[in-house]
Amino acid sequence: MQEENQRSVLVVGSVAYDSVKTPVGSRVDALGGSATYFSIAGSYFAPVSVVAVVGDDFSSEHVELLSSHGVDTSSIQRQSGSTFRWSGVYNDEDVNTRETLDTQLNVFADFQPRLGDLQSRLPYLFLANIEPGLQLDVLGQMAERPRLVALDTMNFWIEDSNRALTEAVRSIDVLFMDEGETRSFSGEPNLVRAARRIMGMGPTTVVVKRGEHGVLLFRGDSVFSAPAFPLENVVDPTGAGDSFAGGFMGYLASTGDLSHDGFRRAALLGSVIGSFTVEDFSVDRLASLTRKAIDSRFRALTDLLRFQPLKEGESLPWRDRD
Amino acid sequence: MQEENQRSVLVVGSVAYDSVKTPVGSRVDALGGSATYFSIAGSYFAPVSVVAVVGDDFSSEHVELLSSHGVDTSSIQRQSGSTFRWSGVYNDEDVNTRETLDTQLNVFADFQPRLGDLQSRLPYLFLANIEPGLQLDVLGQMAERPRLVALDTMNFWIEDSNRALTEAVRSIDVLFMDEGETRSFSGEPNLVRAARRIMGMGPTTVVVKRGEHGVLLFRGDSVFSAPAFPLENVVDPTGAGDSFAGGFMGYLASTGDLSHDGFRRAALLGSVIGSFTVEDFSVDRLASLTRKAIDSRFRALTDLLRFQPLKEGESLPWRDRD
Repeated sequence: MQEENQRSVLVVGSVAYDSVKTPVGSRVDALGGSATYFSIAGSYFAPVSVVAVVGDDFSSEHVELLSSHGVDTSSIQRQSGSTFRWSGVYNDEDVNTRETLDTQLNVFADFQPRLGDLQSRLPYLFLANIEPGLQLDVLGQMAERPRLVALDTMNFWIEDSNRALTEAVRSIDVLFMDEGETRSFSGEPNLVRAARRIMGMGPTTVVVKRGEHGVLLFRGDSVFSAPAFPLENVVDPTGAGDSFAGGFMGYLASTGDLSHDGFRRAALLGSVIGSFTVEDFSVDRLASLTRKAIDSRFRALTDLLRFQPLKEGESLPWRDRD
Repeated sequence: MQEENQRSVLVVGSVAYDSVKTPVGSRVDALGGSATYFSIAGSYFAPVSVVAVVGDDFSSEHVELLSSHGVDTSSIQRQSGSTFRWSGVYNDEDVNTRETLDTQLNVFADFQPRLGDLQSRLPYLFLANIEPGLQLDVLGQMAERPRLVALDTMNFWIEDSNRALTEAVRSIDVLFMDEGETRSFSGEPNLVRAARRIMGMGPTTVVVKRGEHGVLLFRGDSVFSAPAFPLENVVDPTGAGDSFAGGFMGYLASTGDLSHDGFRRAALLGSVIGSFTVEDFSVDRLASLTRKAIDSRFRALTDLLRFQPLKEGESLPWRDRD
């Protein structure tokens, strides 16, 4: 058990019901939320413990779905009221862009994360996209500084809670942001300089999420380009980023390898897991993964990066014109 | 000489004067045009011969710039009138998007490509972005079917000359298009299926250009993701795509290697050359490349793809939950 804890990931975030419309179809009140996607994604590699809040309308079936993946759900608080609800519609022409139709915080409005003693000592922490003040509060509850702290956020907090977010970013190791967020948070339109500026604030690593264009992993002077897996059937992109983060953190927690090579593999595995999520609505595909399916897509994804390096003594062609 | 011709690339396209405004500054009547960027880019690797038209205002200095790169300029026709002019402005927030302010075809309006006997036998042909009817006309002038024919186009021709463009695409090997063009030309919003549909028309290879997100190279069942080099200083993206194509075709012509590995390396070298172009206005950076600069950036670019593959017998982590 002790050993198990040394590979465990704690996630604080939302458990929600989402209503989405995509070019392929629609779903009403389907299981969603950042902590949901993250914990199922991570569960294939490492033990995951969730801190979240749900309403009294939250189905016990959905708690069981998490438990059946070995996720520790004991800190999912149940409050009277309704579960957090989000609804949005994806663009018909470009499924990478979406419009939020409605956000009902419900019980999430008064969410007070409470970590148990065991949770406060877990070595890997993911602060999913919630109010930066709460992210700071969770950091403060950790009995010891985790080995790795990652944080995800969104444009809304960058504008509305910039001070708390900045304070939180100063205390973490890995920041997840999309391209626009990286630019606006850093105040620097160039991504390379934006990532460097953010690393100057504290994080060792900035993961720039680019949707179907994959991610750029900045870590010190090193940059890695993890492609997205080119899918033939994109059903619902909701949760892809949190699934990426779950695969990413799950890999690092499971292997304990925080070297450049470890982070690069983590980004590839994150991309693999995220690619499954978008192939169906809600967690339908994500929750039914097998070791074989993951291995096979990992190989397919890495084939996108395969090229013949220059051999010893071999050089690029060059035309002498003198 | 015979041997030289077997590695030669013929390009038919525009030689122009561009006026651009980018977040960094602006230039008026700077040397531009698809054939210009392509031929200078390709000249570092293979002999390039240009078929184009300019007005009597075209500076002899600019002809000499091409000649000094070993580019055969003997088929750049000089007509009375003004050289093709384009002007555009790049978005301050997102330098990947631009607005065309003005296009003056001038002598280009009556362009009639005329290939010499030697040119009509060159083994590598690039049909840069011009009216598809002219692209077909050039194909018809080839004395023998080139070993490799590549074509670039734009949204305007997809809408306005779809029939001629479709006929041209049926006769070529490699199609260059950006993401939106790939979707609209194929009528298929999903990129993987779009590329497959286009390959079904004839081309063996579809290169989907994604600006600062690099390119996706589709070739049969194989997909390769060539990243763009993450630049700290983007000055002017004009000509990046044609410089990519020049490096790409130059590599293939120089090595003669039309295998999957050859195409993958060609895409990487294209990405390297395109990255230099955007570091300054016009061809200022592109025209001053050294072997050392290219080699060094090729290594830096390929480092973006480097990861530790699974060793023999090694598997991804997996958490057994039974």
